[in-house]
Amino acid sequence: MAPPRALLFDVFGTLVDWRASIARAGQALGDRLGLPPTDWAALADAWRACYDPGLEPVRAGERAWVTLDVLHRESLDALLPAHGLEAMPGTARADLVAAWHRLDPWPDVAEGLRRLRARHLLAPCSNGHVALQVHLARHAGLVWDAVLGAELARTYKPRPEVYLRSVEALGLEPPEVLMVAAHPSDLAAAARCGLRTAWVARPDEHGPGAGAEPPTHDVDHRADDLLALAAALDFNRG
Amino acid sequence: MAPPRALLFDVFGTLVDWRASIARAGQALGDRLGLPPTDWAALADAWRACYDPGLEPVRAGERAWVTLDVLHRESLDALLPAHGLEAMPGTARADLVAAWHRLDPWPDVAEGLRRLRARHLLAPCSNGHVALQVHLARHAGLVWDAVLGAELARTYKPRPEVYLRSVEALGLEPPEVLMVAAHPSDLAAAARCGLRTAWVARPDEHGPGAGAEPPTHDVDHRADDLLALAAALDFNRG
Repeated sequence: MAPPRALLFDVFGTLVDWRASIARAGQALGDRLGLPPTDWAALADAWRACYDPGLEPVRAGERAWVTLDVLHRESLDALLPAHGLEAMPGTARADLVAAWHRLDPWPDVAEGLRRLRARHLLAPCSNGHVALQVHLARHAGLVWDAVLGAELARTYKPRPEVYLRSVEALGLEPPEVLMVAAHPSDLAAAARCGLRTAWVARPDEHGPGAGAEPPTHDVDHRADDLLALAAALDFNRG
Repeated sequence: MAPPRALLFDVFGTLVDWRASIARAGQALGDRLGLPPTDWAALADAWRACYDPGLEPVRAGERAWVTLDVLHRESLDALLPAHGLEAMPGTARADLVAAWHRLDPWPDVAEGLRRLRARHLLAPCSNGHVALQVHLARHAGLVWDAVLGAELARTYKPRPEVYLRSVEALGLEPPEVLMVAAHPSDLAAAARCGLRTAWVARPDEHGPGAGAEPPTHDVDHRADDLLALAAALDFNRG
């Protein structure tokens, strides 16, 4: 089987550690503003738990396309009172929403993408909008060939349009493209669109030692990190 | 005035020498296939002359979005007989259409973009589709933060949607973005959308010594090449 021409990447959790990054950003903000003591990792978890329900009206066509900045602000406003932070000023809320543009990558990511880019076209296929991905790439030192994903289709994964418009934008057919993600539902949706799939283990996404989410379908590759994926794709090339 | 946050670039003529590159690709194809002797630079000129009329039905909403690959193939098929090349096989026509994905940059471009990228976000805002820009960037050694332009808006410059969707995708307002082009009409359209403008002289675009097309409105910058533009933007920063 020919190697994939392009690799598409999930970003939140697969490439960047949103939980620890948001917790650190919250702690720094709390220290700077003298906010009440808060379990910022728990707030990050609660915020992320609002994510999928927030996307659903856009996926269902009940709400026009809005970016994650809009959805993140809405869900942050909704959950702050339960965390004793109802007095957080609007500018601080905007700062915390912007922290999703500055998430830190897992340690293997910059070098792993550099190796993979020697042989494949690379693009994010994330629910994060273009501006967020552009800022994240600069922050984390990632180099992409294009920024694809939800904004191109103006709906959210796992809707098939997001994967298919990304493949189409590269001028390719789905079997020529490998979707890389740490999340079984993302890979299953990509596989239903005809893409090849690679699962990457991210056991610390939900906290140190929380454990990875093993794939629920027969993926083409399983790897411990992007360096292992790069080695596996090189080996398959023979 | 604050420096621009992002620079958007016209590509054909501004960054890459389409005329000499297409002529070289045609000559190489003609030699390989034993095609009749042809003035390939004249064919490149005739092909490019079909460009704007081909875009017009898409701009006018009379034709659904199609990529430049489709339009280039249609116009090539139409003009080959007048150049004595009606016998060119379909695979060779497809090769020549694909040569628009492998155009050579002007000598200052790779280093100029590298310097500009130290201080600004950079993206093409071209009528070339994403796949074409991705291939061109790999061929010419260009590094972009995102690939924006016509495909995002599914219409063609100088329609305002192309500039405005590209600015929106970066999460910016038009005055925060500088449009860089060698062509007055492109810059005038961007200025009407509220973008800042930089004109770059490309006197050899239409052949050695053919002369540059000076801007028709009051642009914010005029530069002999991208190195001069990078120096001017650095100087303005003070």
